[in-house]
Amino acid sequence: MDIPTFDDVLEAATRIAPHIHNTPVLTSTYLNQLSGAELFFKCENLQKVGAFKARGASNAVFGLSKEKAAKGVATHSSGNHAGALSYAAARRGITATVVMPHTAPATKKAAVRSYGGHILECEPTQAAREAMLAQVINDTGADPVHPYDDSRVIAGQATCVLELHNEIDQLDSIIAPVGGGGLISGTCLSMAQLSPQTPVYAGEPEKADDAYRSFKSGEIVLRDGQHSVADGLNTNLKPRTWHFVSNFVKDILVVSEAEIIDAMYLTWQRMKIIIEPSSAVPLAAILKNRELFQGQRVGVIITGGNVDLQSCPGCPALDASK
Amino acid sequence: MDIPTFDDVLEAATRIAPHIHNTPVLTSTYLNQLSGAELFFKCENLQKVGAFKARGASNAVFGLSKEKAAKGVATHSSGNHAGALSYAAARRGITATVVMPHTAPATKKAAVRSYGGHILECEPTQAAREAMLAQVINDTGADPVHPYDDSRVIAGQATCVLELHNEIDQLDSIIAPVGGGGLISGTCLSMAQLSPQTPVYAGEPEKADDAYRSFKSGEIVLRDGQHSVADGLNTNLKPRTWHFVSNFVKDILVVSEAEIIDAMYLTWQRMKIIIEPSSAVPLAAILKNRELFQGQRVGVIITGGNVDLQSCPGCPALDASK
Repeated sequence: MDIPTFDDVLEAATRIAPHIHNTPVLTSTYLNQLSGAELFFKCENLQKVGAFKARGASNAVFGLSKEKAAKGVATHSSGNHAGALSYAAARRGITATVVMPHTAPATKKAAVRSYGGHILECEPTQAAREAMLAQVINDTGADPVHPYDDSRVIAGQATCVLELHNEIDQLDSIIAPVGGGGLISGTCLSMAQLSPQTPVYAGEPEKADDAYRSFKSGEIVLRDGQHSVADGLNTNLKPRTWHFVSNFVKDILVVSEAEIIDAMYLTWQRMKIIIEPSSAVPLAAILKNRELFQGQRVGVIITGGNVDLQSCPGCPALDASK
Repeated sequence: MDIPTFDDVLEAATRIAPHIHNTPVLTSTYLNQLSGAELFFKCENLQKVGAFKARGASNAVFGLSKEKAAKGVATHSSGNHAGALSYAAARRGITATVVMPHTAPATKKAAVRSYGGHILECEPTQAAREAMLAQVINDTGADPVHPYDDSRVIAGQATCVLELHNEIDQLDSIIAPVGGGGLISGTCLSMAQLSPQTPVYAGEPEKADDAYRSFKSGEIVLRDGQHSVADGLNTNLKPRTWHFVSNFVKDILVVSEAEIIDAMYLTWQRMKIIIEPSSAVPLAAILKNRELFQGQRVGVIITGGNVDLQSCPGCPALDASK
């Protein structure tokens, strides 16, 4: 199994610079007071395609040789990676084929199409996704770019905390959400080099706590079939991400659905940014574990902002109208 | 009548730097495609107190002599200036007294109190506000800081486009909303020095088109009693702001209530930032006047993000739940 190194991260940073934003780091006096910590929010909701996924996808696509690239890229995803891979492929002028369950939200399909991605619909099972993707690769020779179990993708996501570290001095801890583990792995990869004494925490929904249970049991445990409102986190760890989670993460903090939704709208209202439910998990975890972060300078990764305002879960505007 | 100069702007920039954010400039490929222009959004919704008003208020407060400051500051406002003045006064450790109509939204009163401002409630008329403010000044010797008809405030607001100009080269035009005219005056003041050939446009709601009618008739015309959803813009020009509007603004573009609300939610959804209705007026004006901005690099000032999510006008989530 190939594991990315910090040199891969530095290469990725150079490679993807023309295709991504160096996103702003925002602060909130109100949230500092509320948490008792000093929070530095790295705003990947303001990233291209509205999520950090633009980093890993761009690194994979722009790292391909001309010959490989000519055959295109392919993946299966119903989330932000699908849009990100389509975006990166379009920037390079190559084909992206995305296998999506036919039950995927219309907005996610629309996002892929808006970036020029080619959608193939399948039954909403893991087996059906994988079978159709294998077929695509067999037929076209496209390069498969897994959403997170891919060294190029992990190295790309690792550029996020590299930017944060370059901008904000002396962070006492870092927290990011964990789903499949691509972002948290990249975060561990960079921090292990840049500041190995800084603990990296992961936040996870109770309803998708497979990483938490894996972490406690010492081996990959799969999801139990529940579904969190933090839809980007309803995924299992894979060998490459388990490597980082098991070796480098300090602890995994779980939060309830209500805590996630509260933290999401608190961020909308107070920080004036739209974040998706997955992105609210770290703040929810900080507010739930105040003593752990008390007085610290904490880096918080806001992973994305792709919510559909028409149907946003638990929206206070919706509630107010009832 | 004292009119601020560009030297006042440079002084203001130095004076307020420790108390405000140099806010990020964001772009959106989607909105560029939609408008046919290249838009650079200066995001004052991410400013301290959630609005550009922190600039002018900080300049007024921190420009006071020790003796003057000891007597505090006072204003009448039911909007962002009230919170901004309270914020700046608290930073300097002096008293801010804010005269507010008793009908002002609870959230606006809460914002003033959260920054430590002292609220005096009055009847919701201009006469009652002014009488009570005069009384406060008479009783306390507090320095009156008008929301916009004040040279210090205009010079402070002028630092916004100064930052934008320093960050983004060669803008072909600039657009900002006009209400009382403090921000647009500051914008004209800076641009007249920095890039006099760059036209400055103002956007205004049809329902609060007093600046438009003033501009066309050549003298200050007052509001006609209608009320726009862009609540920050339901104010009249005053002599100092009329000076800048009449002498420097290239044109005033008016937009409907529906156009404002559409542009606001488009910004939420696509740019992942919360902006208040007033802030959506420039984008609405650009989308309504595509031919005017075609192919241009346009600076767009996002003025603030203080909306109450619980009761946000025309919220698509609200609509979806009906």
